[in-house]
Amino acid sequence: MSFDDKLDKLRANTQEIITLNGISALLGWDQQVNMPVAAAEERGQQLALLGGLIYDKTTSQENGELLSDLEAELKNSSDEDLKAEVNLIRRQYNQLTRIPKALNLELIRATTISHGAWAKAKAENDFASFEPHLTHLVELIRQVADCFGPNDHPYDALLETYDPGLKTAEVQAIFGGLRERQVALVRAISEAQQVDDSFRWRTYDVSMQRKLNPILASRLGYDWQRGRLDESAHPFTTGFGLDDVRITTHYSSADALSSVFSTLHETGHALYEQGLNRKQQGTVLASTLSSSLHESQSRLWENMVGRSRQFWKFFYPTLQAFFPENLAEVNLDTFYRGINKVTSSFIRTEADEATYNLHIMLRMELEIGLLSGELKASELPELWREKMREYLGVTPPDDTRGVLQDVHWSGAMFGYFPTYALGNLISAQLWHKLLAEHPEIPEEMANGELSTILNWLRENVHQYGSRYTAAELVRKVTGTGISPDPYLDYLTAKYSDIYRL
Amino acid sequence: MSFDDKLDKLRANTQEIITLNGISALLGWDQQVNMPVAAAEERGQQLALLGGLIYDKTTSQENGELLSDLEAELKNSSDEDLKAEVNLIRRQYNQLTRIPKALNLELIRATTISHGAWAKAKAENDFASFEPHLTHLVELIRQVADCFGPNDHPYDALLETYDPGLKTAEVQAIFGGLRERQVALVRAISEAQQVDDSFRWRTYDVSMQRKLNPILASRLGYDWQRGRLDESAHPFTTGFGLDDVRITTHYSSADALSSVFSTLHETGHALYEQGLNRKQQGTVLASTLSSSLHESQSRLWENMVGRSRQFWKFFYPTLQAFFPENLAEVNLDTFYRGINKVTSSFIRTEADEATYNLHIMLRMELEIGLLSGELKASELPELWREKMREYLGVTPPDDTRGVLQDVHWSGAMFGYFPTYALGNLISAQLWHKLLAEHPEIPEEMANGELSTILNWLRENVHQYGSRYTAAELVRKVTGTGISPDPYLDYLTAKYSDIYRL
Repeated sequence: MSFDDKLDKLRANTQEIITLNGISALLGWDQQVNMPVAAAEERGQQLALLGGLIYDKTTSQENGELLSDLEAELKNSSDEDLKAEVNLIRRQYNQLTRIPKALNLELIRATTISHGAWAKAKAENDFASFEPHLTHLVELIRQVADCFGPNDHPYDALLETYDPGLKTAEVQAIFGGLRERQVALVRAISEAQQVDDSFRWRTYDVSMQRKLNPILASRLGYDWQRGRLDESAHPFTTGFGLDDVRITTHYSSADALSSVFSTLHETGHALYEQGLNRKQQGTVLASTLSSSLHESQSRLWENMVGRSRQFWKFFYPTLQAFFPENLAEVNLDTFYRGINKVTSSFIRTEADEATYNLHIMLRMELEIGLLSGELKASELPELWREKMREYLGVTPPDDTRGVLQDVHWSGAMFGYFPTYALGNLISAQLWHKLLAEHPEIPEEMANGELSTILNWLRENVHQYGSRYTAAELVRKVTGTGISPDPYLDYLTAKYSDIYRL
Repeated sequence: MSFDDKLDKLRANTQEIITLNGISALLGWDQQVNMPVAAAEERGQQLALLGGLIYDKTTSQENGELLSDLEAELKNSSDEDLKAEVNLIRRQYNQLTRIPKALNLELIRATTISHGAWAKAKAENDFASFEPHLTHLVELIRQVADCFGPNDHPYDALLETYDPGLKTAEVQAIFGGLRERQVALVRAISEAQQVDDSFRWRTYDVSMQRKLNPILASRLGYDWQRGRLDESAHPFTTGFGLDDVRITTHYSSADALSSVFSTLHETGHALYEQGLNRKQQGTVLASTLSSSLHESQSRLWENMVGRSRQFWKFFYPTLQAFFPENLAEVNLDTFYRGINKVTSSFIRTEADEATYNLHIMLRMELEIGLLSGELKASELPELWREKMREYLGVTPPDDTRGVLQDVHWSGAMFGYFPTYALGNLISAQLWHKLLAEHPEIPEEMANGELSTILNWLRENVHQYGSRYTAAELVRKVTGTGISPDPYLDYLTAKYSDIYRL
C-alpha cells in the first residue's frame, strides 16, 4: 500500500470510530433527557455493545500497523498538521491498548460498585464506609498511571487523560502563583460590606424561565439549526457531530438565575463544538482535546460576559420584563452586585468566581497526596477541613458537605478537577487578549452585540479543534503559557469595584 | 462445538443484532422527534454505519454455518419453539444474503431518487414524471422477488417480507369474500340520512390536547415506566427493547380527534410490544413478525374500543370538560355518530372503518398487476380512477389525490398495503372471540375499565411475539383462518345502528 492509501485507510477507520462515538453520545443524551426509567438496563447493554465495537475498531491490529508505518514515514516530514493528526490517532490507540484488559475490567467493576457506595456514604455522612473503595480505586488508578510511564510524577498520566501535555509540576507552579493572592482577595471581600442578593431567592415561574433561556443562547450565537436545548437533572453539553451539538439546563422555581448561568455556561461549551473546522469534519482534528480549553470557553461566556455589568446593561430590562414581580424594584447596580456576591460556601458547584479555584486547588493537593502514596484515604476528611479553613475560612459541618460532596473520585476521575481551575485562568487570558485587540467590546456588550467575541473565539480557538494542546494554543494566542495573573487581575478589578475594596 | 455451544453462540450473535437494531431505531426516533435540521447528513452516516454492522453480523460466515449445523441437528427434534427460533434467525439471514449486493445497492439508490421524484410529481400533479421511476422500481422488485423463489406468484415474496407465510392466492380469496359486501354497505350508507360531525372541525386548543392524550394512553394501560409520548409530523410507534417502547402523535388545532385516534392507534401498537414475553428478552422470539398482526392491535384499540359507544360513555364527559366550548352542547349520541361518519374520500389515510379496506384492495390489485407484468405503470392513473368509481363511487379530480397519494411505491414497499386491511379483519376476529369469552366487556368499557381486554390480548397475542405467523395465531385463538366475516358483521351491525339502515 502506498503512503496515501495507508493514510486513507487509517482515516476511514478513524471516521467510523468517530461516528460510533457520536452514536454513543446520542444514547447518553437520550438517557439523561428522555429515557423512561425502566430502560436503564437495556440502555446499558446498548452502550456496552457500542463501547466494545469502539474498542475493537480502535485497537485493531490493522490500525496498529498503519500507525507504525505512517509514523516511520512521517519522521522527517515537515507537515505538522498531518503529524498532529496521526499523533492524535496514536494517542487514542495507546489510551486503549496500554491498559491490560484485566485492569480495565476491574476498573469498570470497581467504579460501578464505588459509585453506589459513595452515594450511600454521602447520604449517610459515613466516610468510613467509602474509604476502602477509595483506597482500592487509588491503587487501581496508580496501576493505570504506570501503564503510561515513565513520568516525572504519577499524577502526570492522569492529567494527560484530560489535558494532553499538561504536567503536574507545571500545574503546581501555576496554582502556587494563584493561591496566596486568591486567598487574600477572598479574605478582603469577607471583611468588606456585604452585597444584597435577596432578589435571587424569590419564586421565579419556570414556564417563563423556559421562554427566557433560549433567548439567551440565541443572543450568544448558538446555532439552532445544529442543536437544541433540553432539560436534565444536571446541565450538560454533548455533540454527535459538527451539526448536532445539544445543550441542557435545569430549571428551579427557587432560583431563576441558576438556569440562566448554566445555560450561558453550556452555550459556551456548545459554541466551541459548533465552531470546529468544517473542512476537518470526520477527522480527529475536528474534535476537542483539552478539558481546560473546553472549560475556558464555558467560563468566558458564563463569567466574563454573563456576569459583567455591560452584558446586563443590555439584557437586564428583558429579564425584568420576564419577572416584573421579582425584579421591577431591583436596579441594575443591585442586580449586578447580587449576581457576583462572594460566599465562602462548602460546596464547589455553588462557588462564585472568587472562591471557585480554591475548592479545586484543595482537591488537586489531596489527589496528588493519594497518588504519590504520601496520603492515606483515611486522612482525607481531616485534611479537607484543615484546608477549607485555611483557603476559605470555613469548616464543613460534616463530610457530606466536605470530602464526600463530589462524584468524581467514585468514578476514578482523578486528574479532572484541575481542568476546572485552569479553564478559569485561560478564560481570563483569552479575555485579556480579546479586549486588547477589541477595546470596543464592553460598549458592544452594552448594546447586546456579542458577535465580535464569538468571531474572535472562532478564529483563535474553535477552528483549531484538537490541533494544539491547551498550553500550545494559549501561547499561540497570547504569547505566554498558562498563567494565573490575568485571572487575578480580572478578579481584583471586578471585586474591588463591587465590594469597594 | 456441542449443540448447546452452537446455539449459545448463535443466540449471542443474534442478541447483538437485536441490540444494534434497537440503537438504530433510537436514532430513527430522534430523527423524527428531536433532530436539528442540519444534522440530517451526519445522521445518515450514523444509520448507514449501523446498517453495515447489522448486515455484516447477520450474514457472517459463522452465522451461516451455525444455522446449517443447528438445522441439521434439529431436523428430527420435536422442540417446536426452538425450531421456530432458529427458523426466524434463518429468515433474517436469508433476507439479507439472498439479494445480491449489486441489486441491493441499486435498490437503495433507486428508492432514494424515486422518493424525491414522487414528492415532486405529487406536488405538481405530474404522474408522467414519476412513471419511469416506478417502472424501474417494479423491475427491481421483481428481481428481488425472484431471489426468494420459486413461488406460486411473484407477489408472494413481497407479502412474505411483511407477513411471513402469507400467500397471494390466500389474500385474494379473503379480499374476494370482502369486496362485494363492503361495497354494498358503503353504497347503502351513502343513500341513508347523513350524520353531523360539524363539532369535529372547530378549533381545539393544542395545549389542552397535550394534556388529554397521555390520559387516554394511560387508560388503555400504556406503561410510562417503559415508554413516552412525543410529537412528530407523522405519528408512529418504535421500540428499542422490551423496556423502551415509544409513541408519537400529532396535534392539530383544527381537529382534536385526529390526535385522539392516532394516540389510541399508536398505543395499540405499543401495548403489543410492551407485552412481549420478558422470558424471551434478547431473543428473536421477543419481537413482532407480522405487520398484519401489529395492525390488528392498533386497530382493535382505535376502532373496536376507541370508536365504540361504550368507551365514550365513560370518557366523553372528560372530553367535554377539556373542550367545553366545543362539546358542551353536543350530546353523546351525536358525538358517537359523528366520530363514525362514513365518507367516500379520495385519501386512504383519512378513510373511515367502512371504506378503508376498499382503498387497500384497489392498491393490491394494481400491485399484483404490476408485478405479474399484466399492467404497465402508465396505465395506473386511469385504472385508479375506474376502481375508485367502482368501489367508492367517487372519482379523484387529479393524480395527487389519486395514484400519487401514497409514499409506499416510491420506497419500493410493494406488498405492504394488504397488511393494513388484514389487520382490520384480524382485529374483528380477535374482538369477536374476546367478546364471546368476556361478554362483560361492553359494560366494563362503559365504566372505563379496559384491563380485561389488555389482559386477554397479553395472554392470547402479545406473549407469543414472533412464535407464530398471523394465520397460525388467528387459528390458534379463533379456530379458523383469517376471514372477512367477523369484520363485515361488525361493520354491518355498527353502521346499521348509526345510519338506521
